[in-house]
Amino acid sequence: MMMVLIMSNSLLKIIDVIKESNKIIILPHIMPDGDTIGSSMALCLALKRLGKDVKIIVDEPLPDNIKFIEFEAIDEHVNEFQYDLCIAIDCSDTERLGNRRRYLNGCTINIDHHITNNFYGKYNLVNPKAAATGEIIYDLIKALNVDMDKKIATCIYTALSTDTGSFKYDNTTSKTHRIVAELIETGISVNSINVELYQNKPINKVKLLKDVINTIKFYYDGKVSIMHVTQKMLANNKMALSDTDGLIEIGRDIWGVEVSILLKELEEKKVKVGLRSKYDVDVSKIAEIFGGGGHKKAAGCLINDSIKKVNEIIIDNIEEYL
Amino acid sequence: MMMVLIMSNSLLKIIDVIKESNKIIILPHIMPDGDTIGSSMALCLALKRLGKDVKIIVDEPLPDNIKFIEFEAIDEHVNEFQYDLCIAIDCSDTERLGNRRRYLNGCTINIDHHITNNFYGKYNLVNPKAAATGEIIYDLIKALNVDMDKKIATCIYTALSTDTGSFKYDNTTSKTHRIVAELIETGISVNSINVELYQNKPINKVKLLKDVINTIKFYYDGKVSIMHVTQKMLANNKMALSDTDGLIEIGRDIWGVEVSILLKELEEKKVKVGLRSKYDVDVSKIAEIFGGGGHKKAAGCLINDSIKKVNEIIIDNIEEYL
Repeated sequence: MMMVLIMSNSLLKIIDVIKESNKIIILPHIMPDGDTIGSSMALCLALKRLGKDVKIIVDEPLPDNIKFIEFEAIDEHVNEFQYDLCIAIDCSDTERLGNRRRYLNGCTINIDHHITNNFYGKYNLVNPKAAATGEIIYDLIKALNVDMDKKIATCIYTALSTDTGSFKYDNTTSKTHRIVAELIETGISVNSINVELYQNKPINKVKLLKDVINTIKFYYDGKVSIMHVTQKMLANNKMALSDTDGLIEIGRDIWGVEVSILLKELEEKKVKVGLRSKYDVDVSKIAEIFGGGGHKKAAGCLINDSIKKVNEIIIDNIEEYL
Repeated sequence: MMMVLIMSNSLLKIIDVIKESNKIIILPHIMPDGDTIGSSMALCLALKRLGKDVKIIVDEPLPDNIKFIEFEAIDEHVNEFQYDLCIAIDCSDTERLGNRRRYLNGCTINIDHHITNNFYGKYNLVNPKAAATGEIIYDLIKALNVDMDKKIATCIYTALSTDTGSFKYDNTTSKTHRIVAELIETGISVNSINVELYQNKPINKVKLLKDVINTIKFYYDGKVSIMHVTQKMLANNKMALSDTDGLIEIGRDIWGVEVSILLKELEEKKVKVGLRSKYDVDVSKIAEIFGGGGHKKAAGCLINDSIKKVNEIIIDNIEEYL
């Protein structure tokens, strides 16, 4: 209730701040995803429509499946651009900006939907009930009186679809679907966007998937599945650790599995543990045992040991949470 | 235009016919899927709410991922049930009813969204623009003045989600999303339904997936991918041909692939060819060469030869369609 109140007050003030600003930079988070990129680009397009000079700053390549978005405004050298407003997108804290946190200025707007957001901005537009930051951006664009067009709609659709697992996750609300209905009415091609987002995996990712499936083991009457990926498997398939996104879902989507675990070998005796739950197991509590964290249904931690040993450690510690 | 006119006239008449009937049977199609089962059960619940005596007739088990629907009204022995109205759901022609076509009577309503529907009912409620038959059932339930509740909403959500690939395919419209928004407002759990629909694969299906990925080959600069599944692979994994649903998408979802082909060995020298396209290739034309058919993006045919030979034949004939 209080959150909603804070937000409503902020929205009016934030519109004033944006209207009074002329040079604006937008900062998506590190390891960018569909929500941060779609939201940033949608806002950039809307602000340009209002006559603002806008630059989005990133220092990493976009994920392959997001590259279809016409990401016009990227500028890596912004020092000479004397901006008066900085907008951080989909970042719960300033750590999520990596080195680009140096761009935060005294007039920063923090737009986000993570419940863990720590209100680091001078102005904070944070709504944990929004399915994606893209949903907040949609409201903001409406409040700024910018008409929705195909380009903006494509960006917001990307944000909403990727952060809800194509409208499958709990965070999807009736509002999410009503927004998408309106986006579709601008004439976007639902199928074309979805082909880009979900039907363009590298061949080698499918081969890596096969190798990872080969490692699958089950514990506790099939309630727990564990898979792993080694540096050797990555090298054999010419893949990087960042290409392992989504592999953990193969384990989760098996009948009877309540917790899916993927062990990623970062280097010898250094293993990143990914955890996903299907129903009621809170995997963030399991991650916390090992100094990690996350959400109820998706969490992770780092353990300095071999894959074989990490497998044992996890299995020895998981039973009471099932 | 004419189609819409026919439909509107029918809707009013069909509501009269339903209101005047007391004993009603509902027939989903053979090899039932989420749309036919969700639509049938939603309609059954709505008709019962109007005080009708209703039975759904099926003679096959439901797919595992649909079994969560409380499919109350199944009755395989309907001979003694003197029904006055028969409603066929999601069947483009009477072949789609298999042996149950004997239940069609002089007062049959045909409710469907396939463009190939041949209007076999006395009354026909056919709208090829509907994403799923579930969308037509939604309109019908509204027109019958039955309130939407969680049970009915769960059934219609299942119909819409499964026939649109979780709202990813071209058939998804703004209307589809607006309906889903309303369904969510009845209090259904989006995540729970999606866990049932998409996160409960048999372990052995994942192992079969791995075996099928092992067979993948690429042709024409990676534009065509071919995989196969043999009877031996099925036996090794204790799987049936009906468990191969969805495997063909692994090939389609690879970067650069425009046509994905899955060869299924029915018996020695008898191969079912499945074809899927990503962009503009019309795979129904390829299927037609071999006496098969289907839609632009999903088609199939039967070729009486070995998998090795069928692979060659398809590759020799596909180039001009790419």
